[in-house]
Amino acid sequence: MAGPNRRAVTSYDVAKAAGVSQSAVSRAFTEGAKISAATKDKVKKVAAELGYRPSFIAQSLINRRSNLIGIVVPGLMNPFYSAALDNLSHKLNLMGYRVLLFSMFRDDDTDPIMEEILRHRVEALILVSSSLSSHFDEECRLLGLPVVLLNRKNDSETVSSVTSNNLAGGAAIAEFLIKAGHRQLAFIAGRDSSSTSRDRETGFGQRISEMGAPAALRDAGMWTIEEAMNATRRLMSLPKTPDALFCANDMMAIGALNVVVGEMGLKAGSDISVVGFDDISMASWPLINLTTWVQPLTEMVDLTVSMIKSQLEDNEAEPVQHVLVGKLIIRGSSRSIGGDIGKDTTLPNL
Amino acid sequence: MAGPNRRAVTSYDVAKAAGVSQSAVSRAFTEGAKISAATKDKVKKVAAELGYRPSFIAQSLINRRSNLIGIVVPGLMNPFYSAALDNLSHKLNLMGYRVLLFSMFRDDDTDPIMEEILRHRVEALILVSSSLSSHFDEECRLLGLPVVLLNRKNDSETVSSVTSNNLAGGAAIAEFLIKAGHRQLAFIAGRDSSSTSRDRETGFGQRISEMGAPAALRDAGMWTIEEAMNATRRLMSLPKTPDALFCANDMMAIGALNVVVGEMGLKAGSDISVVGFDDISMASWPLINLTTWVQPLTEMVDLTVSMIKSQLEDNEAEPVQHVLVGKLIIRGSSRSIGGDIGKDTTLPNL
Repeated sequence: MAGPNRRAVTSYDVAKAAGVSQSAVSRAFTEGAKISAATKDKVKKVAAELGYRPSFIAQSLINRRSNLIGIVVPGLMNPFYSAALDNLSHKLNLMGYRVLLFSMFRDDDTDPIMEEILRHRVEALILVSSSLSSHFDEECRLLGLPVVLLNRKNDSETVSSVTSNNLAGGAAIAEFLIKAGHRQLAFIAGRDSSSTSRDRETGFGQRISEMGAPAALRDAGMWTIEEAMNATRRLMSLPKTPDALFCANDMMAIGALNVVVGEMGLKAGSDISVVGFDDISMASWPLINLTTWVQPLTEMVDLTVSMIKSQLEDNEAEPVQHVLVGKLIIRGSSRSIGGDIGKDTTLPNL
Repeated sequence: MAGPNRRAVTSYDVAKAAGVSQSAVSRAFTEGAKISAATKDKVKKVAAELGYRPSFIAQSLINRRSNLIGIVVPGLMNPFYSAALDNLSHKLNLMGYRVLLFSMFRDDDTDPIMEEILRHRVEALILVSSSLSSHFDEECRLLGLPVVLLNRKNDSETVSSVTSNNLAGGAAIAEFLIKAGHRQLAFIAGRDSSSTSRDRETGFGQRISEMGAPAALRDAGMWTIEEAMNATRRLMSLPKTPDALFCANDMMAIGALNVVVGEMGLKAGSDISVVGFDDISMASWPLINLTTWVQPLTEMVDLTVSMIKSQLEDNEAEPVQHVLVGKLIIRGSSRSIGGDIGKDTTLPNL
């Protein structure tokens, strides 16, 4: 689609104008390459005059480096994903890499775009809250392409991943809500394809059962505010209304608050408790004030970046599944357990 | 940093294994290139066995196309920026491009990274809420590199831009607040370097003066929630307290609501009015319910993409400064003007 006149200045143009070989131009721009000071100066002067810039693309053919790391995200409307991308991008820049962005638009199956990702010759791949099929897992291993899943894990242990302890988080939230005197809990799920939603639900359900409380009601919010609002409306019109809602992420919990507080006029923290998962920045806003499970995003990003770095340095590195420790933070959207536990306190070891 | 064993299969490897020339491998993967069916089949079979994939990088050296469009954003913590990026990425993908992301981390001066951007040989550049210096403006024009500023404009008219009518928005908000009976308005600014913040303030101040109302108080929130909360606390402790706050974007308005409602216990919409600018998705949440000026983001993105497309097709295309029409949407965070204007109605022509 480029117009016929649009053409970047190439090393050929510089070589011709400076009266040297293309190889001399290349050496003039390569750190430590063998070239006389006079030739180097002449090349740099002509290059500056013509507006020549050594291209990453040309260099990457020589040294097989693209300086690009692919990041796959399932859309950016959830602040957890945009915060992860923001943070990853910042830390990868400090290492000299730039982010080639693959945004999937509310999907989490990467298969349809993996062929294209691999053709871009990224140096590594980070999948945020997205899965990798066994086919492409194997292909990436054959290519020696470093891959880390962030906030998602594969069933097989051949892919490196960083998650927080979703099972423990779900269990702690169940215990907290039951101890706060709630009688009928409900769970609002993300997508069934997501291991994170499944693990949070499993931990929640097991602890409810262990404590002898009635099984939780259930509906699905598909990770979005709008669907979570619909799920909340359905749950709140059941014959036996839930008095506590645990939503598999914060965005859905905000959707639930929109319905029970904004639409129904209930008082969150006394009439009903709403609990999320993630601790996105807005969870702590006084207007939202959401009790939630803190996923340690900064730590998760740091670990992801350091695992990518290890794999880039040693492509025989064994895959590792890291599970970080989260914690419950109690704010105004939920009843507290008793006098000894105030608002805005954390409760790490239930 | 790549390990010594990590090496992608190249056209050379395929050529060797198939017993053909590298040029034959290249032609086998080029639509419409001259090559016999038998040779093409043989090359494709060997390529599949070896896991060879024609590289965008190698192809881009031949056809000068990288398939990459650079997008510069000043961080992603403001949902207006992440929504813009999400939307741009989706529409550019449909045109066959991928996004090379340059996130600037709360800065809006692109100079320090422009050298690097140009070395990546992107086919076009979109700057979201970020400026382009006259030096790099000229350089991009010399290179024939299409550039569009989204939600920002340069003082010179040599760079294409898409903004909404910030002056009219500021003026309409002043008129609305004065007609709603407010006596002391205040403005919370973004960064002074930003043309959008300056234009909103100018429109606001001029209309206040035209209507003979007292000049607005002023503080700066630097586009962030935290700084806007500090600015609000300072304004609310002045001897003459403002009864209406206009914040130069929605995130800062949410910060202001956090203080006046969450901390001070005032009732927004009666004790005080708070008005934002953007209409990010959370402005319409029942929990936030923010009166704001709607920037037509989808239209702004569509226009940006179509301007990029025109410039890619014709690099002599004249730069254009598009200014789209926004509108005021009245929600619960502000007093309404009177019985005839209800909540959640729009007020396009004040």
